[in-house]
Amino acid sequence: MTALRVALLGCGTVGTEVVRLLREQADDLAARVGVPLELAGIAVRRLDKRREGVPAELLTTDAMGLVTSDDVDIVVEVIGGFEPARGLLLAAMKAGKSVVTANKALLAEDGATLFGAAREYGADIYYEASVAGAIPLLRPLRESLVGDHVHRVMGIVNGTTNYILDQMDTSGAGFAEALNEAQALGYAEADPTADVEGFDAAAKAAILAQLAFHTRVTAAGVHREGIADVTSADIASAKAMGCVVKLLAICERVPSEEHRAGRGVSVRVHPVMIPRSHPLASVREAYNAVFVEAESAGSLMFYGAGAGGAPTASAVLGDIVAVARNRVYGARGPAESTYAELPVLPMADTVTRYHVALDVADRSGVLARVADAFAEKDVSIQAVRQEGHGDEAQLVIVTHRAPDGALSATIERLRDLEIVRAVASVMRVEGDD
Amino acid sequence: MTALRVALLGCGTVGTEVVRLLREQADDLAARVGVPLELAGIAVRRLDKRREGVPAELLTTDAMGLVTSDDVDIVVEVIGGFEPARGLLLAAMKAGKSVVTANKALLAEDGATLFGAAREYGADIYYEASVAGAIPLLRPLRESLVGDHVHRVMGIVNGTTNYILDQMDTSGAGFAEALNEAQALGYAEADPTADVEGFDAAAKAAILAQLAFHTRVTAAGVHREGIADVTSADIASAKAMGCVVKLLAICERVPSEEHRAGRGVSVRVHPVMIPRSHPLASVREAYNAVFVEAESAGSLMFYGAGAGGAPTASAVLGDIVAVARNRVYGARGPAESTYAELPVLPMADTVTRYHVALDVADRSGVLARVADAFAEKDVSIQAVRQEGHGDEAQLVIVTHRAPDGALSATIERLRDLEIVRAVASVMRVEGDD
Repeated sequence: MTALRVALLGCGTVGTEVVRLLREQADDLAARVGVPLELAGIAVRRLDKRREGVPAELLTTDAMGLVTSDDVDIVVEVIGGFEPARGLLLAAMKAGKSVVTANKALLAEDGATLFGAAREYGADIYYEASVAGAIPLLRPLRESLVGDHVHRVMGIVNGTTNYILDQMDTSGAGFAEALNEAQALGYAEADPTADVEGFDAAAKAAILAQLAFHTRVTAAGVHREGIADVTSADIASAKAMGCVVKLLAICERVPSEEHRAGRGVSVRVHPVMIPRSHPLASVREAYNAVFVEAESAGSLMFYGAGAGGAPTASAVLGDIVAVARNRVYGARGPAESTYAELPVLPMADTVTRYHVALDVADRSGVLARVADAFAEKDVSIQAVRQEGHGDEAQLVIVTHRAPDGALSATIERLRDLEIVRAVASVMRVEGDD
Repeated sequence: MTALRVALLGCGTVGTEVVRLLREQADDLAARVGVPLELAGIAVRRLDKRREGVPAELLTTDAMGLVTSDDVDIVVEVIGGFEPARGLLLAAMKAGKSVVTANKALLAEDGATLFGAAREYGADIYYEASVAGAIPLLRPLRESLVGDHVHRVMGIVNGTTNYILDQMDTSGAGFAEALNEAQALGYAEADPTADVEGFDAAAKAAILAQLAFHTRVTAAGVHREGIADVTSADIASAKAMGCVVKLLAICERVPSEEHRAGRGVSVRVHPVMIPRSHPLASVREAYNAVFVEAESAGSLMFYGAGAGGAPTASAVLGDIVAVARNRVYGARGPAESTYAELPVLPMADTVTRYHVALDVADRSGVLARVADAFAEKDVSIQAVRQEGHGDEAQLVIVTHRAPDGALSATIERLRDLEIVRAVASVMRVEGDD
């Protein structure tokens, strides 16, 4: 073997960085792999777009021709989305190539097909860049912690929403205003749906849960709520109880007395109040961080830039070197592991805590009737305080841990109470009980 | 292949946990590896010691017989120290076994011999547990960031000293008092030399530097200062400038205008003042955390429990699974990488900043003469303040970045000045300039 030939699919922000690093670090990469890595070609949709530092002679619009070429060993996909990415990756593996992809949406939606092809054709598929950019997270989960028993993975995996919530927390801005600022600074896209509604985080949660629990989890199995309904009042309410609001991806085993593996896994993305003393609370701006709780390792945290061309390209390069080394040594990376086959439980079975703010009539007996509604659904109250008087009277309640189904049934019950004028805010609380 | 047989060398705190995990997680481990992992034997010095949960029939005092037995595939060394650990690991690799070790002192002192044997006999050698317990750090450095260009690794890698410094910072205790408390709580050993004098951290620094810079670094190449001389006055002085004192292991490229790889690498362990806003400043008690700065990935931080039986065993298990999978698939892990061969520079060439407190005569012209001494050695002053009067008069000076050699020559010059009654405190400052 005299060199390994790399085909790149897509040449946007990340792709351009991958090209730059492959060229600038060529000597280092050759030393680390054992043979040089050469760019065989770059598949793009349009040849006439200006791309700084990208050799025009390598560009082609024939992506399928490129990935199946005998002249290619490794295929790197940074197009994103479903097709043509999916078909190209499948064709590449069928043709005996190793593949590296940053495509979280595709992996979360149809990972089964991709991993199935990898198994069938004996191909490597690496995807560190699909979650949390340059933060080494998938490799630690699938390799370092593989001898441990992971209980929970909880993280800030979307920089856009963290930036928005951080702005709301520090400057008192409302959601719309903070979103506008994030867009002006390039932290949010013109159509912010994928970030703001939690789709991006949900795809990452599915990938993390699958690795942590050795169980197939797709985006459809992830309970998802975005941050568009988070109000300044929610943020203020969080502050009042020493908390901060974060959009978290939470993957956890739901405990069971009978089974060590738990009754199943719960995977969810939603806004959460966490204590300001929690390590995730201090993750500011567009940074990402993931907190892992494992039986033997205890609590671990991984922190860094979760997005951006250069950090994502760093993760892609790490994977390119890994699959290249595997080719040099005739080795294979770890395959998909879904042996545990735990059920993915509905949100109603997830155990969590609620923070509830109720606009109530300011008269005697209100607290007793509200407390009755909680008791009726078997939800125990940890703390309650009354704020304001008359038309401004508000009851703020924090519950103990209970199944989400019981908690949301309580909210329905509260809405029916005549003395409750409105349910002003409902948010889950995580971190120390 | 129907099973892989594991030999354990040493059965102390970590070894006992490894045995427990191999037994309790047997089904999970078998699913993750592809074949069951079986304990073939456990080499100990004394058979009569009580060991909870360890099958007595597996114990043997014939360690060499065990590691060379045809019945063994993987050898796990958690004895520590040089001999017999070194001889046993070499014999194991020669006999075709894969090895996993947590032995930082041996790797830092004589890694060349171990890695040489791994190359010669085609053996895997994994050692994640040797640095920062369960925190996945070596695998991210040697695999995830392998396509990136690491500028600096800076971390709290010794829990004992972090506990002591944290106590001094929060309770105002002196060093001796904080050390006593750490010993009472089991965070420090009866003979605390290895921790307090920085030997433990220096060994870890050598291992981290070698991985980060693809350059052979031994413990002897690490500049080492412990924390025994850190005084309450130093801590107070750090507080006054918004800093906290930490014992850091710092591995960095010393920049060069001519060479992208830098003029060389600097590896050091010493007490440092860092701003309280730095992510490492908030690492409390006996926790560990390592901050990595890479060209593309940007700033990353890894945080968790750095020691203890269970966390260290988690890292050992991850490595056992990795080498076991390699055996199942006929693969090999990454070998030692020292291609960059950068010079390990003396401390004098390291660029850093100093915080200096001088007891001075309280008369006019003192500042001018002190400033002259700095200028003479080409060290520029960033900030200076005078505290106290008369016999209590003190000048506190913080410098800009300069070669350590120039900074220490300045201190020598200051000691000679008649107006300087004493150099009360000298400490390096890292973090934002």
